[in-house]
Amino acid sequence: MTEPEMYDVAVIGCGPAGLSAALNAAVRRKKVVLFGGEFCVSKINRSPRVDNFLGRPGVTGEALHREFVAHVRKFNIPMVNKRVINVFPEAEGFGLAIKDRVYRARTVILTVGMAVARMLEGEEGLVGRGVSYCATCDGPLFRGKTVAIIDYTKEGIEEATYMAGFCSWIYYVCMHTEPPQFEQDNIELLKGLKPVRILGADGTVKALELDKRIVAVEGVFIFREAFPPQDLVPGLELEGNHIKVSRALETNIPGIFAAGDCTGKPYQLAKSVGEGQVAALNAVAYLDSAGSK
Amino acid sequence: MTEPEMYDVAVIGCGPAGLSAALNAAVRRKKVVLFGGEFCVSKINRSPRVDNFLGRPGVTGEALHREFVAHVRKFNIPMVNKRVINVFPEAEGFGLAIKDRVYRARTVILTVGMAVARMLEGEEGLVGRGVSYCATCDGPLFRGKTVAIIDYTKEGIEEATYMAGFCSWIYYVCMHTEPPQFEQDNIELLKGLKPVRILGADGTVKALELDKRIVAVEGVFIFREAFPPQDLVPGLELEGNHIKVSRALETNIPGIFAAGDCTGKPYQLAKSVGEGQVAALNAVAYLDSAGSK
Repeated sequence: MTEPEMYDVAVIGCGPAGLSAALNAAVRRKKVVLFGGEFCVSKINRSPRVDNFLGRPGVTGEALHREFVAHVRKFNIPMVNKRVINVFPEAEGFGLAIKDRVYRARTVILTVGMAVARMLEGEEGLVGRGVSYCATCDGPLFRGKTVAIIDYTKEGIEEATYMAGFCSWIYYVCMHTEPPQFEQDNIELLKGLKPVRILGADGTVKALELDKRIVAVEGVFIFREAFPPQDLVPGLELEGNHIKVSRALETNIPGIFAAGDCTGKPYQLAKSVGEGQVAALNAVAYLDSAGSK
Repeated sequence: MTEPEMYDVAVIGCGPAGLSAALNAAVRRKKVVLFGGEFCVSKINRSPRVDNFLGRPGVTGEALHREFVAHVRKFNIPMVNKRVINVFPEAEGFGLAIKDRVYRARTVILTVGMAVARMLEGEEGLVGRGVSYCATCDGPLFRGKTVAIIDYTKEGIEEATYMAGFCSWIYYVCMHTEPPQFEQDNIELLKGLKPVRILGADGTVKALELDKRIVAVEGVFIFREAFPPQDLVPGLELEGNHIKVSRALETNIPGIFAAGDCTGKPYQLAKSVGEGQVAALNAVAYLDSAGSK
């Protein structure tokens, strides 16, 4: 396998902060890769009317998002339609793992938003003890066992199909509007049921409680639009629910920056666009001071 | 004299940060006053082409500024075309002194930009000892004396006329492109000469040195687009040349916020628009937590 290409700036997230960060790094002639891109669902698309983005009175979120993406497209930035599972330090810069390969970048800008969905009761304490956000990473640990997949994003459909190959039984909890039809006879589709809590004993998962049913499982895999940034970047310092950043939008890890909703309130468009710019220009300064091209 | 009207938010500055701050406070139904407004010269107007403001590829600065002002105009925010000379604490909120009256506001947002012109040699050490930025405040101290007015903004024209009424002689150093014709015979117009330094002795101003001439004066009045924020707001804490702010864009003085170039680099449009929003929303939160309407 050949050494993967090295990017200057990897932007994780496709909302206004991520698009602004990618644009600003590209304008400064850095080699940028964007995870997300126009295909992903950004919160801005759901705003019927935006009044407080200076210069665009009464615009729809959808129109703004279309213009944002068109602007970024002019710079031919590669947009990778995959979820980044893990960011880890390498000898030079960082590795970014997606499901089937690793990207490399000298700097990373996190614009991962805020998960709208709250964590389930019991979830946080059982992460790594039966609760997982990555079938590729952790699936094989559940060979021959019964697991639940809670799927808010449709991403879990493919994962259920994959895990059905080695798990004994899979409960697929459909939390989106397009319930799939599975061909495998060891996947049970649960719809119209709402997860309430994850039950553990002796420090591991024992069951998933839904509002009208409890199923005994040894693993729970959850696929949400966003997931906690500290699971994405081990060692990342938080402040409450947000990524802790300086005024220059540096995180506690040199070379990793953050922008947008994930750095704190207000959750607003102009704030995100501005922070994306500041994070990108400081990433550029970091690269230049490190003597990178 | 009746008590002047109380505003919720006073925004000082008419660039992108100030316009965004005024807009966002008005959207949240606060009573806003903006000092500056569309008439003032904002740096953005001088950008022939802006590439990195997300959603508006290759737009001219002038077009953007026109759109920004039009957006703010929809909210019928009073725009006061006067320079704020001083911000001072009052029993409730702050007083904002302009030349001929005082405005009152519960919160203040400083978006005063960065002075493009550097200070003259000798200027800083002689502020209050012959160097002044306000003819109304300090002019009467120079009754019967000779002063120089260095005018970058045309604001000094009216001040020269005013001070000619009681000063013995005025050198008007024209640093803009429209030299005025004075009727008073004690004003001497100097054009095509560049100020080099202010000379002092015994802690007071003695002369102004221009590149081809030295004039003996006891006072030097300087009118620039921006002037040092610590002179505008006594007690304001700086960090280097910038106003020191928290991530919430609070200054060291509760109720006073800052946004845009004056808070630090990068000096960029999206950063300013974003910070204007954040400062305004935090000013709104400050007002609401103080139980103001």
